[in-house]
Amino acid sequence: QSSVTIYGRLDASVGSNKAGAPGVAKSVSQLESGLLSTSRLGFRGTEDLGGGMKAIFQLEGELKVDDGTAAGFSFNRMSIVGLQAGFGTIKLGRHDTSFDDIRDISVSSNLWDSEFSPTKVAYVNSVGGVAVAHVADYSSRASNQIRYESPSFGGFTAGVSYGFDEQAAPVKRDVTALNVRYRAGGLDAGIGYQEQDNEVAASKREYTTIAGAYNFGMFRVSGGYNKAEQGTLESTGYTIGANMPVDAWDFSVGYATNKSELAGVTSAKSSGFSAGATYSLSKRTRVYAAFLNGKAENAAGTKIADRKLYAVGVRHDF
Amino acid sequence: QSSVTIYGRLDASVGSNKAGAPGVAKSVSQLESGLLSTSRLGFRGTEDLGGGMKAIFQLEGELKVDDGTAAGFSFNRMSIVGLQAGFGTIKLGRHDTSFDDIRDISVSSNLWDSEFSPTKVAYVNSVGGVAVAHVADYSSRASNQIRYESPSFGGFTAGVSYGFDEQAAPVKRDVTALNVRYRAGGLDAGIGYQEQDNEVAASKREYTTIAGAYNFGMFRVSGGYNKAEQGTLESTGYTIGANMPVDAWDFSVGYATNKSELAGVTSAKSSGFSAGATYSLSKRTRVYAAFLNGKAENAAGTKIADRKLYAVGVRHDF
Amino acid sequence: QSSVTIYGRLDASVGSNKAGAPGVAKSVSQLESGLLSTSRLGFRGTEDLGGGMKAIFQLEGELKVDDGTAAGFSFNRMSIVGLQAGFGTIKLGRHDTSFDDIRDISVSSNLWDSEFSPTKVAYVNSVGGVAVAHVADYSSRASNQIRYESPSFGGFTAGVSYGFDEQAAPVKRDVTALNVRYRAGGLDAGIGYQEQDNEVAASKREYTTIAGAYNFGMFRVSGGYNKAEQGTLESTGYTIGANMPVDAWDFSVGYATNKSELAGVTSAKSSGFSAGATYSLSKRTRVYAAFLNGKAENAAGTKIADRKLYAVGVRHDF
Repeated sequence: QSSVTIYGRLDASVGSNKAGAPGVAKSVSQLESGLLSTSRLGFRGTEDLGGGMKAIFQLEGELKVDDGTAAGFSFNRMSIVGLQAGFGTIKLGRHDTSFDDIRDISVSSNLWDSEFSPTKVAYVNSVGGVAVAHVADYSSRASNQIRYESPSFGGFTAGVSYGFDEQAAPVKRDVTALNVRYRAGGLDAGIGYQEQDNEVAASKREYTTIAGAYNFGMFRVSGGYNKAEQGTLESTGYTIGANMPVDAWDFSVGYATNKSELAGVTSAKSSGFSAGATYSLSKRTRVYAAFLNGKAENAAGTKIADRKLYAVGVRHDF
Repeated sequence: QSSVTIYGRLDASVGSNKAGAPGVAKSVSQLESGLLSTSRLGFRGTEDLGGGMKAIFQLEGELKVDDGTAAGFSFNRMSIVGLQAGFGTIKLGRHDTSFDDIRDISVSSNLWDSEFSPTKVAYVNSVGGVAVAHVADYSSRASNQIRYESPSFGGFTAGVSYGFDEQAAPVKRDVTALNVRYRAGGLDAGIGYQEQDNEVAASKREYTTIAGAYNFGMFRVSGGYNKAEQGTLESTGYTIGANMPVDAWDFSVGYATNKSELAGVTSAKSSGFSAGATYSLSKRTRVYAAFLNGKAENAAGTKIADRKLYAVGVRHDF
Repeated sequence: QSSVTIYGRLDASVGSNKAGAPGVAKSVSQLESGLLSTSRLGFRGTEDLGGGMKAIFQLEGELKVDDGTAAGFSFNRMSIVGLQAGFGTIKLGRHDTSFDDIRDISVSSNLWDSEFSPTKVAYVNSVGGVAVAHVADYSSRASNQIRYESPSFGGFTAGVSYGFDEQAAPVKRDVTALNVRYRAGGLDAGIGYQEQDNEVAASKREYTTIAGAYNFGMFRVSGGYNKAEQGTLESTGYTIGANMPVDAWDFSVGYATNKSELAGVTSAKSSGFSAGATYSLSKRTRVYAAFLNGKAENAAGTKIADRKLYAVGVRHDF
């Protein structure tokens, strides 16, 4: 028992959500789990193997505080065992892709990478069940994955992840991702690439992202560029955000926009704006209020879907 | 890890169960989980936030010792995060309703609120698959729930819980409950109300209960009145029980009866009797033996179902 | 929390698997969980009740490191509460059968009772989806089980397990198992019997096994005989293995063969060979490489299926 740490985060809020076609979608009052950050429960540990080498493991699953995780608890967020040494870190199992690390930078000050982040409405191809002609957003995790993270060379790190499809040919569903990242002083920036292969060429998806964040002390900004490609459909998005701590408060605003072209002709446009504040009751507990407002347009520039999300909640770490 | 406590209870027994139509239902030998009290595994913690305020969380799921919880483990019993202060306690998530607290008092000395409690055969609308014309018993828990518990005012507390249906209108499935409770010396008594709303008026259900328990020192008694209403169907039930500790033993007997009227005409009658004893091997471990015997009658007074449950088992807390 | 120990094992590997009809089955690259030993997470504890009596519990579930246990975590490996005293140990719940203890001895030095053990290809009635005319191998666990293990009498122990089917007659699906085991010095040997009853006589299955292992110090050997019967189909198998520790290394080789007769006429033959090595980075962490190579023949002696499994991996205990 000395070798395992139990940890978790519980995030619950009361608010309303409205998503779908204008004039059709209805506002729904809700008690939600995980809007500021995903509720979770995990087990992790490290063993010193000597000679600078460590064995590491982490098991982490999503909790749905609102319904008791009715679908059943699993370790869907992270499930890895690995080795860490001078050569870097190798992790085997289910894990974020290397691309995901960079996408996370781009929204790190944009409503704290939460469900309120405007990319959650701007970068998706379905809003409240209404299809939007963007490339589907990337898969942030993959199963059957081997992942390597380099040590830091003067602030630079590189990472690569590969998820086996575990299917016999001709099926090709491997997920491959790469990143290069630079961290120094208040700067955190990187580029990432992810390929979600498919035996049908028109179903293969590729993602490229460039992201950065800078901490000015008084406040912090983050932003990024994101390109998604599938066949002749190409989506190009941008996001920017800022957060400013004031005593126990932390205020944040964010914006994201995304535009798609099918064979060079505009097929969809989306954008989102959000704002929020958290108030820390302690290092481990904070209350918060936030909202997200976004919309999607079709090729003709007509609004086909919008989303309004409001909530006040509490988040507790253990 | 200092901030989380792991706890649990494992209850397994060997016995037999027979439930259903007389002459048709067959006795089945079984190794069961949770007859004396539900087997469970949980994680909980408290953080002192200063100024008399605390953050609290609790995650608790049912275990099926007999099959390894084959349906998958979740936190179906309790999954909450909340704040506690001078004003009382607020909990968000999945939780018992406020009504359930009072119903629990009524059977607290009636076979210790176990599966042997005769209300488990008298208050239900199905015995071994045979429909009995009572209003279905209340839902003891609700998801998407916000719950408030007042501090004690001279022994009096009040509570309210509200579970969002999280459905767009016209669906109306909210679960609302209230209680008022008085505790002083050996007395614990209260009244509770619960409404399980429905957009179809004939499907809406309402429950009212009055319950009390008194500890005489040598022995303890509990009892309660319960009314359930759905459209023109109304079920009225009573339960009473007593338990008496003698050295390491604790003996208990209980009785419950329930009668329903559809538009004022008797539609069903049920009753149950049970008795049992536990023997403590330690504070955390006890062995037990108990039985439950109950029956249901239709409008004509003909017995349409009975249930006989016997078991000897062991319960261990950790 | 003082009364519960959290423990686990994570085993992940990269390799390939090919199983099925020759010329049809394709090799699939994979990141697998649990090839050297099943990945798991568990909670266990013991309470001293005085007078030489103890209460025990154990909850243990399989982890799939590769996909985050996507099917949902449960306590499918072990879920028991019990009492231990001078008379022996009684366990209630889901558990290995008493027969399984003996079968485990037979492969304890045969690729360390892993997925590489050649019995995993020789004793089964399906290889990569191709049916092989053997009796299906035994069920290693049963739900609804009561299990007794005697204390040691001069090295001898005996065990019996009984799993209720919990079905009304005429269904008969109880699982009954017995063992007698002798342990002294470097020797560990035993006999076991298991009956998987069925209301249809032709579906009832019986298993008998004799197994032994001896530790010569420099190396260790294990082996066993196994007979499986279902109606007029009878399968007879043998397995043998050896492992030799050399510094931090542990090398192992193993072989298994199985032959079936339907009403006295040969219906199938299978055999497997495997070899592997583990290298300990610490007491709790080792890396490994291993392979398994096996095949199955039909009544005519024609090869109808083969399996080739290769992997290099890491296993970490916590």
